[in-house]
Amino acid sequence: MKGITLLLASVVILAGIVAFTAPASLHADDSAAPAYVTKIPPGYRDWRLISVSLEEGNLNSLSAILGNDVAIKAYREGKLPYPDGTIIAALHYAHVPSAENNKVFGHAQSFVPGAPTNIQFMVKDSTKYAATGGWGFATFVDGKPAAPASMKSCFPCHSQAKASDLVFTHYAP
Amino acid sequence: MKGITLLLASVVILAGIVAFTAPASLHADDSAAPAYVTKIPPGYRDWRLISVSLEEGNLNSLSAILGNDVAIKAYREGKLPYPDGTIIAALHYAHVPSAENNKVFGHAQSFVPGAPTNIQFMVKDSTKYAATGGWGFATFVDGKPAAPASMKSCFPCHSQAKASDLVFTHYAP
Repeated sequence: MKGITLLLASVVILAGIVAFTAPASLHADDSAAPAYVTKIPPGYRDWRLISVSLEEGNLNSLSAILGNDVAIKAYREGKLPYPDGTIIAALHYAHVPSAENNKVFGHAQSFVPGAPTNIQFMVKDSTKYAATGGWGFATFVDGKPAAPASMKSCFPCHSQAKASDLVFTHYAP
Repeated sequence: MKGITLLLASVVILAGIVAFTAPASLHADDSAAPAYVTKIPPGYRDWRLISVSLEEGNLNSLSAILGNDVAIKAYREGKLPYPDGTIIAALHYAHVPSAENNKVFGHAQSFVPGAPTNIQFMVKDSTKYAATGGWGFATFVDGKPAAPASMKSCFPCHSQAKASDLVFTHYAP
């Protein structure tokens, strides 16, 4: 999910321009504006594993993707769309070599999580987040939510995963 | 943990020779021989996350490392040695590019778990596994335990992590 921010900068800019130039009347109803998740869902570090991932390139990130009980049940049953109450957490870490492991292996081959870079969430609430496919998006850096402007790319990018209800991560067996 | 098998093939061979040529009297007491874990600990896929890792080179493996409740408590408290009852699971997957994600990113940068390659466990029981530092080691491929000969390298390699009670994986925040 992290790369979306970098990749779709142009989309963000375009969206910003559109928002800025749109007639005020279109914004009379605030419920149509995207709502973001502004509080870290409690207990996420105790959630069960959905999968892991690696992003190379600019992101250079090792990640664990966890789900709350509703998410894990939905993943295992393979039913879409995800029900309200589903929360998916992506814990992103810097992707750093492990000097300790490489010494044992005798090769530079081992990578482990470095410092956390951010934590992202997708929260399903088909009413509250109706404007963004029923998903509320969130990015927290050092426990603080990212600026809303940087979040505008989440929904259009995730919309490309329509067949899996806007979720990129598959369940690892 | 997976790479140990490959790396220490020579140790395994040596150990085999030593075992084969040792006087029979040394083996009168079976408790001195390494014991391995032969059953998959139930419920491990529901355990909480310790960390994730990536091994490049021959291993080319993306991994999730999970712990049972005893393991998670011990990790979070930072107390060593790990108490009896600790179980650490390493779920290893082939490290494969995600065509789906790369299409969205516009770059070949995204890797996800492919087919599971094996699952490894470390089970702490200071009595049962006294001969191997209190840890029972296990590798399961397709649900079946690996041949004991291939497991002889586990303990000598993990012994290099003496400062962390033979455990390589650190807790990811």
